[in-house]
Amino acid sequence: MDQAKIKKRIRIPALHSKIMTAEAAQAFIKNGMVVGMSGFTRAGDPKFVPFAFADAAAKDGRKIYLMTGASMGADVDGAMARAGAITKRMPFMSDRDMRASINAGKMLYFDQNLSDQGYQIRQGQLPKPDLVVIEATAVTEDGVIIPTTSFGNTGVFLEYAQQIILEVNIGMPDGLEGVHDYYVPKRMPNAEPIPLMHPRDRTGTTGVKVDPSKIVGIVITNKLDSPSENVLADPSQDAMAANLKQFFLNEIKVGRLTNSLGPLQAGVGSVANAALWGLMDGPFENLLMFSEVLQDSTFDLLDCGKMIYAAGTAITISPKMTEKVFGNFDRYKDKIMLRPTEVSNNAELVKRINLIAVNTAMDVDIYGNVNSTHIGGTHIMNGIGGSGDFANNAHTTIFLTRAAQVGEKVSRVLPMVPHVDHHEHNVDVIITDQGIADIRGLAPRERAQLIIKNCAHPNFKPELYKYVEEANKRGGQTPHVIEKAFEWFARQRETGSMLP
Amino acid sequence: MDQAKIKKRIRIPALHSKIMTAEAAQAFIKNGMVVGMSGFTRAGDPKFVPFAFADAAAKDGRKIYLMTGASMGADVDGAMARAGAITKRMPFMSDRDMRASINAGKMLYFDQNLSDQGYQIRQGQLPKPDLVVIEATAVTEDGVIIPTTSFGNTGVFLEYAQQIILEVNIGMPDGLEGVHDYYVPKRMPNAEPIPLMHPRDRTGTTGVKVDPSKIVGIVITNKLDSPSENVLADPSQDAMAANLKQFFLNEIKVGRLTNSLGPLQAGVGSVANAALWGLMDGPFENLLMFSEVLQDSTFDLLDCGKMIYAAGTAITISPKMTEKVFGNFDRYKDKIMLRPTEVSNNAELVKRINLIAVNTAMDVDIYGNVNSTHIGGTHIMNGIGGSGDFANNAHTTIFLTRAAQVGEKVSRVLPMVPHVDHHEHNVDVIITDQGIADIRGLAPRERAQLIIKNCAHPNFKPELYKYVEEANKRGGQTPHVIEKAFEWFARQRETGSMLP
Repeated sequence: MDQAKIKKRIRIPALHSKIMTAEAAQAFIKNGMVVGMSGFTRAGDPKFVPFAFADAAAKDGRKIYLMTGASMGADVDGAMARAGAITKRMPFMSDRDMRASINAGKMLYFDQNLSDQGYQIRQGQLPKPDLVVIEATAVTEDGVIIPTTSFGNTGVFLEYAQQIILEVNIGMPDGLEGVHDYYVPKRMPNAEPIPLMHPRDRTGTTGVKVDPSKIVGIVITNKLDSPSENVLADPSQDAMAANLKQFFLNEIKVGRLTNSLGPLQAGVGSVANAALWGLMDGPFENLLMFSEVLQDSTFDLLDCGKMIYAAGTAITISPKMTEKVFGNFDRYKDKIMLRPTEVSNNAELVKRINLIAVNTAMDVDIYGNVNSTHIGGTHIMNGIGGSGDFANNAHTTIFLTRAAQVGEKVSRVLPMVPHVDHHEHNVDVIITDQGIADIRGLAPRERAQLIIKNCAHPNFKPELYKYVEEANKRGGQTPHVIEKAFEWFARQRETGSMLP
Repeated sequence: MDQAKIKKRIRIPALHSKIMTAEAAQAFIKNGMVVGMSGFTRAGDPKFVPFAFADAAAKDGRKIYLMTGASMGADVDGAMARAGAITKRMPFMSDRDMRASINAGKMLYFDQNLSDQGYQIRQGQLPKPDLVVIEATAVTEDGVIIPTTSFGNTGVFLEYAQQIILEVNIGMPDGLEGVHDYYVPKRMPNAEPIPLMHPRDRTGTTGVKVDPSKIVGIVITNKLDSPSENVLADPSQDAMAANLKQFFLNEIKVGRLTNSLGPLQAGVGSVANAALWGLMDGPFENLLMFSEVLQDSTFDLLDCGKMIYAAGTAITISPKMTEKVFGNFDRYKDKIMLRPTEVSNNAELVKRINLIAVNTAMDVDIYGNVNSTHIGGTHIMNGIGGSGDFANNAHTTIFLTRAAQVGEKVSRVLPMVPHVDHHEHNVDVIITDQGIADIRGLAPRERAQLIIKNCAHPNFKPELYKYVEEANKRGGQTPHVIEKAFEWFARQRETGSMLP
């Protein structure tokens, strides 16, 4: 171990006696505890204690109630799920094995708007964590914990936990110190407005102050985040990105947006990355990001000068981009900021800055409702994440999805979505690889015609028009043939195809 | 006409030449115009020009695109619908004949979150009104229009309209002047926080300043608002109110709320009235209201001293309460305020003040999704109104509904709601006449057990448990037997009953 580096990172000498192995640290986790862990979209999660806990819990049967910022990296959610060590998980996960456990009813999952968790803990509506495991860049002389590549719910966890385990990651760049801005929104009876008028405004502290006596164990680590698994753009993603760009160009043309658009939020994943890469060409300038996750596309936009500032709550990038960004962190330090989810996803700010929200959908329906979470309406994929935080309050709320998948035999544009995460009242624009449906101000019957015409895959247009025709005969503001609304799922169940 | 009163109410002498009949004024409305009208939940709507327009349009075939604050009073939406004079209506209506026209596909209806309309007009996402018809208490020397019993979207309409028709209602109390607070939220690039920290804070002007040369016609009227049609509480409403009270008492007991609760928002109608009347007894004190509509229950709570301040965007009360309130307006003037919907329903404020949102549902499902708008999933009743503005951002989001109706043969607690206006991620508590389900922090499988046990009508519990059992066998985060999810509606269609 690099003792000089450890000394530099842990600036309270008395804390050095708390340095221990992950195996020793995990023993502080008791059966039945509510445990909070750092981590957001694979960024800034503890990388050793959770695995050590999973290994031990598989033998000793301990179970915990686990809260995080969002999804954790590597296989850690999977390891804990396989060990049967989680009774309930919230607010987000994206692991294959944990997903299987949840869908099998072996563990519980509270799939929550990410901005709500911290607030609900503070209000006593969710349990306060007994113990937290937090990855840190440093602990200052004053007992301020500096997070690493994500902020998430680390602040609220540290404030309320009785016991704190730190993973001090000496592999993270020194420069991360100063990137964070910790501020807690103040509500009645001591209300104040969040004093941020622009994505780059700062108002808080660079970390979270704790009582050092609560730190029961420190594990020194030197391992980077699990890299983003987002694959490169495929042709359908390129088509979606081109359509999004076309939508923006038209908004600029009619004067609703300038070349700077609004501050951008983009969902996590390859579709969102492709969508943002699409802005590297064209008239766009002085772009701003106000989002959850800064991805490869964010840094490419900063590099090429199209984007001037990016604020979020996590940095989730590929190995190649990690090398580039961490290899020259000073180049980016003044252009990025990481905030707690309570602020990065806050409705007050989303409204104030006229945010453009770009998220991916699993399915959309002909009336503009969006399913982001449940395969076939029942089986969870990941969770709503922050999409609702942004979509409910944005200047323009856009959802992207492929028109069809699985050899174009499964339509993603449906008569009725089987689960609703974003409803007709909050969706402005739907974009598929087939085209753009701007449904602002449109009544449901108008939406149906436009979405089918512009967004559905040609394989499914005849069936969709037929459905609408039959539904219209029954009347209504939002016509449906209610007993046939989910018929395509039954068909897919039987034949693997939604085609008749 | 009372010339002294007219002079007192219209303080720009040159405007007196614009006084005319409603029949003359309506002629300014041209075919194809986008028309904005004041009015919110029967309060503060123009009472003569729209009828005169409907009569004339029935003969001359004019059609308009009509925006309001929310629903209009009397039969005016119905009259315009019957005349075929509306191509599209937004953001809310609650008239029987207009509803029939919409459901028959004879006119279009954009059912919108009420706080969005003003914003979307300002952003160019919805058309700007060509002409507006606004009920006013007075026009000041400086050309400031003082609204009457509602604010709604009157501000944004007056700012953008090319032509203004006023109905100056001399029957409205003089004291209404000073009750309003007009402020427009400022967004990027000139962002500022909304400078309100408490429901009673003031920041704006008492009315909306206009260029008097835009006023093309003034009609003098002397007719009160159509009274609230909310019927007295029935036994099921009393049971819901008692359960809501029980929920609040428990929140106080466990320390999550004080005797002052949080500022209260309550939906419109007899259920919400009954719910608030329930707070007249008990330990509640220093209650505040931050809502859309101030109803009879609001004034009763002010009268009995339990409530100390009530802010909203409209006053919709019974004839008896109108007599009481308007007969002694000075008694209430310092305890109430009317704001534009852009502020009364604003997410920034809803979050900042820790609002308690109490709204009524049409149907709920076992996983906590709520249908507020569509009968059987297809036919519009009224619209989402402001419920989403409040529910998405509240401290505690509560929905009330009867467990069953129509001789208890139709369950309001369903396997799956056929239309989603409030989804699982934004609903905290469901209350029926049968009981309370506090679903905060619960996974869907937990929610199903609790909602069936506590909230469903005994007639439907066996069927609901059977559905869940069958659904659980198929697995999933939110188990469903997707092809049977709407089976009860088919049954009701055939037999009039959801019972097997």
